[in-house]
Amino acid sequence: MTQSRTEIATLGEFGLIHRLSEGFQPALPDTVRGIGDDAAVMDLGGEYGLITTDMLVEGVHFDLAFSPLRHLGYKAISVNVSDIAAMNGIPHQVVVGLGLSNRFSVEAVEEIYAGVKAACEDFKVDLVGGDTTSSRSGLIISVTVFGKVAKEKVAYRNTARPNDILCVTGDLGSAYMGLQILEREKQVYMANPNMQPELEGKDYVVQRQLKPEARMDVVYELEEAGVVPTSMIDVSDGLASEILHICSQSKVGAILVEENLPIDEQTFLVSTELNLDPVTAAMNGGEDYELLFTIRQDDYNKVKNNPKISFIGYITDKAGEVILNTKGGNRYPITAQGWNHFS
Amino acid sequence: MTQSRTEIATLGEFGLIHRLSEGFQPALPDTVRGIGDDAAVMDLGGEYGLITTDMLVEGVHFDLAFSPLRHLGYKAISVNVSDIAAMNGIPHQVVVGLGLSNRFSVEAVEEIYAGVKAACEDFKVDLVGGDTTSSRSGLIISVTVFGKVAKEKVAYRNTARPNDILCVTGDLGSAYMGLQILEREKQVYMANPNMQPELEGKDYVVQRQLKPEARMDVVYELEEAGVVPTSMIDVSDGLASEILHICSQSKVGAILVEENLPIDEQTFLVSTELNLDPVTAAMNGGEDYELLFTIRQDDYNKVKNNPKISFIGYITDKAGEVILNTKGGNRYPITAQGWNHFS
Repeated sequence: MTQSRTEIATLGEFGLIHRLSEGFQPALPDTVRGIGDDAAVMDLGGEYGLITTDMLVEGVHFDLAFSPLRHLGYKAISVNVSDIAAMNGIPHQVVVGLGLSNRFSVEAVEEIYAGVKAACEDFKVDLVGGDTTSSRSGLIISVTVFGKVAKEKVAYRNTARPNDILCVTGDLGSAYMGLQILEREKQVYMANPNMQPELEGKDYVVQRQLKPEARMDVVYELEEAGVVPTSMIDVSDGLASEILHICSQSKVGAILVEENLPIDEQTFLVSTELNLDPVTAAMNGGEDYELLFTIRQDDYNKVKNNPKISFIGYITDKAGEVILNTKGGNRYPITAQGWNHFS
Repeated sequence: MTQSRTEIATLGEFGLIHRLSEGFQPALPDTVRGIGDDAAVMDLGGEYGLITTDMLVEGVHFDLAFSPLRHLGYKAISVNVSDIAAMNGIPHQVVVGLGLSNRFSVEAVEEIYAGVKAACEDFKVDLVGGDTTSSRSGLIISVTVFGKVAKEKVAYRNTARPNDILCVTGDLGSAYMGLQILEREKQVYMANPNMQPELEGKDYVVQRQLKPEARMDVVYELEEAGVVPTSMIDVSDGLASEILHICSQSKVGAILVEENLPIDEQTFLVSTELNLDPVTAAMNGGEDYELLFTIRQDDYNKVKNNPKISFIGYITDKAGEVILNTKGGNRYPITAQGWNHFS
């Protein structure tokens, strides 16, 4: 018997998930939304429950050469809380699975848990369980968060409507620049272990990479302002990827305005030093863990003075067509392959 | 600065979990029960929510030399459902995290998911999300199950009472015997790849190891019989370990009756062939994924004719003292180090 062999790389991560999830149609009456959004949605009776999981694998998602264990524990919680935030939900409980090789001491594991605890306190979630096991190779951290949201306030990816305003929190591209700096300093250190890392003036971008903060603050502020986003997603893979998710799932298009993209001053400085393009970092860099969302035009006045929110464009009825209006007056189409400033 | 280094092995899995969990006291009003039971318990308003997570790591929990990928996908769901069953709960939704090295093809991942799907159908749960990532080395499957239970029906580990009857479902020790057979056949195969595995008459014990079934059937039957266990735990680490968990957490003791321990005929036959002791396998073998629970004496008549349930002893008021009454008329104390027939 011969078996065909298809490499995972030929499908890509999204293609693989799509292919695998085809066979799984929710059957239970309390499953409101299954695979395909930042978190799954369950009917709890009075409100909705939310559940999301993420696995961080050493050598793939982090490099222990420059990721302190405490930051790593923090980040593992934060990136999952970010998925609950992206549903406009509140995180409640978390479980943590840890795979450890024997090069980790009890003290090292305690460092990871110190970061987990700090994140649990910052995001007001309870660690309620987990599984600790040995691993033959690297460190694996698997986190699942359970959250809740009022039924009328849940924000999906597929409900953006034409003329809605596109909003994004914080700034974009800084986590990517932080990673480039850390990678560079690692190379310098490997060439000469006596060299000290040169991180002066780069603290912000490095922090953005090592210890991202889920934007629960904005979820609470939207609630206070009386605004329910018409759609929402968190920016984990870069703005271009996320806006395409919203547009394809909502069957709409979008116009992005380059000069409105929020890019921190330090991101500009580092990008100059590294000869990288800051707009490309904002569009494709990833790991910002900001929130990208849409609001009704009627809600604009309620949030226009919030300094954490940038208004970067609007939704159109041209399904699947996402355009970046550049500072130079050009219109660049954004495609699934990502966006390249120099293409 | 010198840092002390404590090896994880000096604490053991339970010691490590105990040390790490000390810093985490639940703070939210809807966290009913955190770390320390088969699943965490959350207040959803009308009923309780349950959440549990387990990580299976290649080379630690399974050996791909004899674990078919489809069975592995099934087992990953089943062992988590077993933790929900152990709370007397009903599983509803599941999320799956998968870490894959590039030696896995799309077809291999589809085999894993075929097993996940079969288990989802058998246990009536919806797969609602997940995370698929690359891994530098082996296969990692991390599963989290969300379930529900009526508030008055939840079964904890710490609520057994003196004079309650000790019950266990199915049979014990067979999964351990299955593992011994698979390990033996692997050695034979490695010595001579032309040898075919000798599994005739061993199908049951092998199946118990490769494709364990969470005992949701018994959870439903207890419900029909109108019986709520006074305490419950699933048998993942062997009967001795689980009865000690119940007794220490409930501050009671127990008498176990050796001749009442359910051991399958095939387990006896294989144990003779391998020169192993079947009672030791039942006490310490692990991976049976049966349910160990206690009932009030008043409830005995409601379940005494259920062929899936064995009545293996009773609870005493002697806190922490667990005794096995042997067929030979001896009294063996069961300790945390496990029980050895030949000690």
